[in-house]
Amino acid sequence: MKISFESDYNNGCHEAILKKLIETNDDRATGYGLDDYCTVAREKIRDACRKPDADVFFLVGGTQTNATVIDTMLQSYQGVLAVETGHINVHESGAIEFGGHKVLALPSHDGKMDAAELKQWLQDFYADPTYDHMVFPGMVYITFATEMGTIYTLSELQAISAVCRQYGLPLFIDGARLGYGLMAEGCDVTLDQLAGLCDVFYIGGTKCGAYCGEAVVFPRHNAPAHFFTIVKQHGALMAKGRLLGIQFDVLMQDGLFFKIARHAVDQAIRLRDAFVAKGYEMYSNSPTNQQFVLLDKETIVRLEKDFVFEQWFPVGDKMNCRFVTSWATRPDDVTALIASL
Amino acid sequence: MKISFESDYNNGCHEAILKKLIETNDDRATGYGLDDYCTVAREKIRDACRKPDADVFFLVGGTQTNATVIDTMLQSYQGVLAVETGHINVHESGAIEFGGHKVLALPSHDGKMDAAELKQWLQDFYADPTYDHMVFPGMVYITFATEMGTIYTLSELQAISAVCRQYGLPLFIDGARLGYGLMAEGCDVTLDQLAGLCDVFYIGGTKCGAYCGEAVVFPRHNAPAHFFTIVKQHGALMAKGRLLGIQFDVLMQDGLFFKIARHAVDQAIRLRDAFVAKGYEMYSNSPTNQQFVLLDKETIVRLEKDFVFEQWFPVGDKMNCRFVTSWATRPDDVTALIASL
Amino acid sequence: MKISFESDYNNGCHEAILKKLIETNDDRATGYGLDDYCTVAREKIRDACRKPDADVFFLVGGTQTNATVIDTMLQSYQGVLAVETGHINVHESGAIEFGGHKVLALPSHDGKMDAAELKQWLQDFYADPTYDHMVFPGMVYITFATEMGTIYTLSELQAISAVCRQYGLPLFIDGARLGYGLMAEGCDVTLDQLAGLCDVFYIGGTKCGAYCGEAVVFPRHNAPAHFFTIVKQHGALMAKGRLLGIQFDVLMQDGLFFKIARHAVDQAIRLRDAFVAKGYEMYSNSPTNQQFVLLDKETIVRLEKDFVFEQWFPVGDKMNCRFVTSWATRPDDVTALIASL
Amino acid sequence: MKISFESDYNNGCHEAILKKLIETNDDRATGYGLDDYCTVAREKIRDACRKPDADVFFLVGGTQTNATVIDTMLQSYQGVLAVETGHINVHESGAIEFGGHKVLALPSHDGKMDAAELKQWLQDFYADPTYDHMVFPGMVYITFATEMGTIYTLSELQAISAVCRQYGLPLFIDGARLGYGLMAEGCDVTLDQLAGLCDVFYIGGTKCGAYCGEAVVFPRHNAPAHFFTIVKQHGALMAKGRLLGIQFDVLMQDGLFFKIARHAVDQAIRLRDAFVAKGYEMYSNSPTNQQFVLLDKETIVRLEKDFVFEQWFPVGDKMNCRFVTSWATRPDDVTALIASL
Repeated sequence: MKISFESDYNNGCHEAILKKLIETNDDRATGYGLDDYCTVAREKIRDACRKPDADVFFLVGGTQTNATVIDTMLQSYQGVLAVETGHINVHESGAIEFGGHKVLALPSHDGKMDAAELKQWLQDFYADPTYDHMVFPGMVYITFATEMGTIYTLSELQAISAVCRQYGLPLFIDGARLGYGLMAEGCDVTLDQLAGLCDVFYIGGTKCGAYCGEAVVFPRHNAPAHFFTIVKQHGALMAKGRLLGIQFDVLMQDGLFFKIARHAVDQAIRLRDAFVAKGYEMYSNSPTNQQFVLLDKETIVRLEKDFVFEQWFPVGDKMNCRFVTSWATRPDDVTALIASL
Repeated sequence: MKISFESDYNNGCHEAILKKLIETNDDRATGYGLDDYCTVAREKIRDACRKPDADVFFLVGGTQTNATVIDTMLQSYQGVLAVETGHINVHESGAIEFGGHKVLALPSHDGKMDAAELKQWLQDFYADPTYDHMVFPGMVYITFATEMGTIYTLSELQAISAVCRQYGLPLFIDGARLGYGLMAEGCDVTLDQLAGLCDVFYIGGTKCGAYCGEAVVFPRHNAPAHFFTIVKQHGALMAKGRLLGIQFDVLMQDGLFFKIARHAVDQAIRLRDAFVAKGYEMYSNSPTNQQFVLLDKETIVRLEKDFVFEQWFPVGDKMNCRFVTSWATRPDDVTALIASL
Repeated sequence: MKISFESDYNNGCHEAILKKLIETNDDRATGYGLDDYCTVAREKIRDACRKPDADVFFLVGGTQTNATVIDTMLQSYQGVLAVETGHINVHESGAIEFGGHKVLALPSHDGKMDAAELKQWLQDFYADPTYDHMVFPGMVYITFATEMGTIYTLSELQAISAVCRQYGLPLFIDGARLGYGLMAEGCDVTLDQLAGLCDVFYIGGTKCGAYCGEAVVFPRHNAPAHFFTIVKQHGALMAKGRLLGIQFDVLMQDGLFFKIARHAVDQAIRLRDAFVAKGYEMYSNSPTNQQFVLLDKETIVRLEKDFVFEQWFPVGDKMNCRFVTSWATRPDDVTALIASL
Repeated sequence: MKISFESDYNNGCHEAILKKLIETNDDRATGYGLDDYCTVAREKIRDACRKPDADVFFLVGGTQTNATVIDTMLQSYQGVLAVETGHINVHESGAIEFGGHKVLALPSHDGKMDAAELKQWLQDFYADPTYDHMVFPGMVYITFATEMGTIYTLSELQAISAVCRQYGLPLFIDGARLGYGLMAEGCDVTLDQLAGLCDVFYIGGTKCGAYCGEAVVFPRHNAPAHFFTIVKQHGALMAKGRLLGIQFDVLMQDGLFFKIARHAVDQAIRLRDAFVAKGYEMYSNSPTNQQFVLLDKETIVRLEKDFVFEQWFPVGDKMNCRFVTSWATRPDDVTALIASL
């Protein structure tokens, strides 16, 4: 069987989660996230964020979470600001527009938004005498880590947050890969800092060891009214919510979530360093668990004999290829790949 | 700990599913339902339905499934016909309207639609000279078993199906509790008959032993174009689709799905017969795993000491109470409850 | 040519409006309702309502106005309460659902909502332990005059308004036929009282002498933020807004709007009294410009030789027929019809 | 009073329309576009397009028309391709997204779409292995004349049409300023050619002499089923549809529509030539009734004493200013402006 670097959602769940699922299987629990596992998991998340008043909701997947949060926080005449490469603008099949809202696209810098460009966009918008005929900016969406594997520095986040507050725009951080961002090489942002700088974010479980689940956090008890009902309306309310509560309970126990992310990042950095040492050109300078490297056709054919990875898009006469690590990536897997380079 | 008859989604998952989750946990599988578990599960579902050309998709939950299917099959100017008590008309927080469609409500007869009333409604609609200013009927939605625990006979289903075909309306059967319906006392409908009479239905996993998952079946290779993308757009595409595939693989193996349902129904009938024998008045004559009985306050207080069940709504000076059984209901649980009556 | 009682929107516009259109045709005016005609018309409307702080917007037609106002004032998880026969629930092709909202239907009493039933509905809703899974009530919609030609008394309006305030629900009065309601036989409600009892209403121009135009009034400077933009988003912002401003300017000058309505009502009452005197059975007891009478087939055939009117729906072996008067109905027209009875 | 070049919708209506409104005012006509004026106007439009089977509908305004047509022709998982500067992407307050669809933006070349870029976009889309997670292209939207005053040549239109047919995409031409496009200096496209190359377009009345009204044409009897109802659902169905029918009846009589446009274009070209002769820099090379010229602050101040025009946005240290002509622009107006340059 080939060794896979295809994605971080190709294995089952982390063994600690599996163990807890086994232990709890015969317990009875009420539905819809009102059970004790969810209650405990919420408390652990509040602790991890150091936000004791945070409202926490468990949803199933990322696109669903983005659509539900964005629909809820926007007024009908508002759109959401995101970079062109943002997940909501590309790979969610129009889920935001399905909810009635435009994605207002800003330039992407390796997947990141620039605070100065954001500010300029907003100044230009309100300087346009016809803005009453346009879609109003209603919130700002960024990803951490980004779709390109990059992360924001603390000062970059602070700058974006400051612009948002100046213009009264909520800041929403898509954390589908939050763990890998916080545990990235050189990351100077902590979870509580991130929670303090935004108005809502989520902790991605699906790509960090869980079978499914994204924990939406409104850090200052600022969940919109009747968010539970809105989640239901979006088809995002899991009947056996315990499945989500149990998984986050385990992930948030003794820092497992962060350990998983750190392990994956470590392996990704090993891989990246090997690519660089052997003269391969990286597509982006990623400090997280996703590595993008330009490979020629011959190399791709050779590597595909033993390894699984995705070809994203051509760059010149080479192909931008993605290698992803996870909790399930064994150091030996990386060693084997390095040996094949 | 109290014995629970609260619902059929309060336990973990059936032990056979748990076993398979353990066995497969270290396997690698591609995402979004493109994995081998899903492939195998689809084939088993086609076999169980005797519909070799069926298109099968795995979604996570019932409201999500209803909204996704209905949005997809309706034109923008059409609504969906359902009985007043239909789940989509009451307990889905307006998910159908969120997608832009009206629920056109018909009278409910213990949760069931009457074919003659449906036909009359359609005749009246097209006889109304102003119908071009109204919401057109676009499909028919029924539940099997219904929210009241009742089921349709084969001839009732045939009659509804015939009206649908006469008027060119797709028939959609919400099967959140399909197993309990097919295994109900006195049910004369088989899965393949049901599949043959409708245009789309789903096999509910969540309430029948799975952690989550509803298998949508378009029986005659009649899935709408790009349904995969529409599922994604609705936030209903699970990244680790294997979780759904594995569960349905197990449920469809050796008829487990039906065995689970039969067991639950058997226990429910025991309970119902005991209620009746002891002179309690049933709210509806349910042959499935949900039993509705009218209890006075004193009895409720007494039973609540040892048992969990839901109070639905008052009927006269009594309360309509719901008792639900599942795969996890032990015969001893029912015996204990009967002893307390 | 036959004499028409088909509807109140079958003629051109009132001669005073036509005169003003001719006079102003060569004037230049800025677009989108920012012109002086609109400004003057707004001021006259504020005066007529005795609501000096009212926000006034001009939209084109009734369905559009209902959808725009309702979409704006509802949160995403809310629906609008209306009687079953309400225009939004029947004859707007699902425009409310297109905007994502459910119409929550209450019983109709000759087109009217009963305050006690409204209150009971709200009490029941909040008493239902599952209401978090349901569509929340978000506003109340009534029509004045109703689709059946009936009107509310002042005390009935006060009672509905009181329930709305108790439950924090805005009250919206569809005034497509507001003039005919206020000028109805026996009406004890004035425009300023009506404006004081609701949160938003509109003054229907289309059916009361204008070519088009509905003036939406938020009586206490309580228009939602950026309503202008929402109107545009709904395709309801007329480029040459002057057309609406000019028409309302004329209608609000020297009480023309009320004179038109009074004239039409007077003619309708003449007609009704003649029907009753000659032994015809009225479908409803309408004090406004719409009269509903049960006619047998023979009478219909006979009357249709010289008159135009609508057949609505059968009642027993007769047909409920509608006769509508307007500013353009001449007393001689009514005299001729009476003579034919 | 200043001479206005502010827009082409600042006057009343063309005198021939006014005359007809006066003549017809006392006529009775049925509502909703089912009257004889609309019938006659439809026939004249079919003649003008040389499309005897065309389906024709009259709507009120441009944004409304765009939203209604686009919502109707797209499947739920599809978006509409338009250039970045397209009206639907900028100045419609998100009306397309309100209907659930994404605007997929292509580069703008003075307001125009490039057929080769369109083809490349489509090739890239279907070459992307993840396209099932993206918004599908569902139709192509272009404006004629564009928002920048430019027009397509026949060969450019043919090239876009050919790409659309290759990919099975309907081509929709926004004709809010269709007359000015067809009558533009150097235009080599006729109305019947344009109608033959697209799948739906509209003839803009509002900006070409009418008070309001856009005539939607499906040239090959290809209107979507129940378009009437969809128009109603969008709040775009005028009760007194005669107002639209009368106006288009007049506009289509003896080529008035084209004469109006030709007159306005002639005056605009006079103005443009004068700007150029006097050394002003034009922002775009417009052959239509909208002229864009870069003016410095001093010139703006000077001209604003006697003339009205819009400042669009800064270009370097100058301002891009728009001067618009219409049927109501007198040659003397232009002469006066030229004298002031």
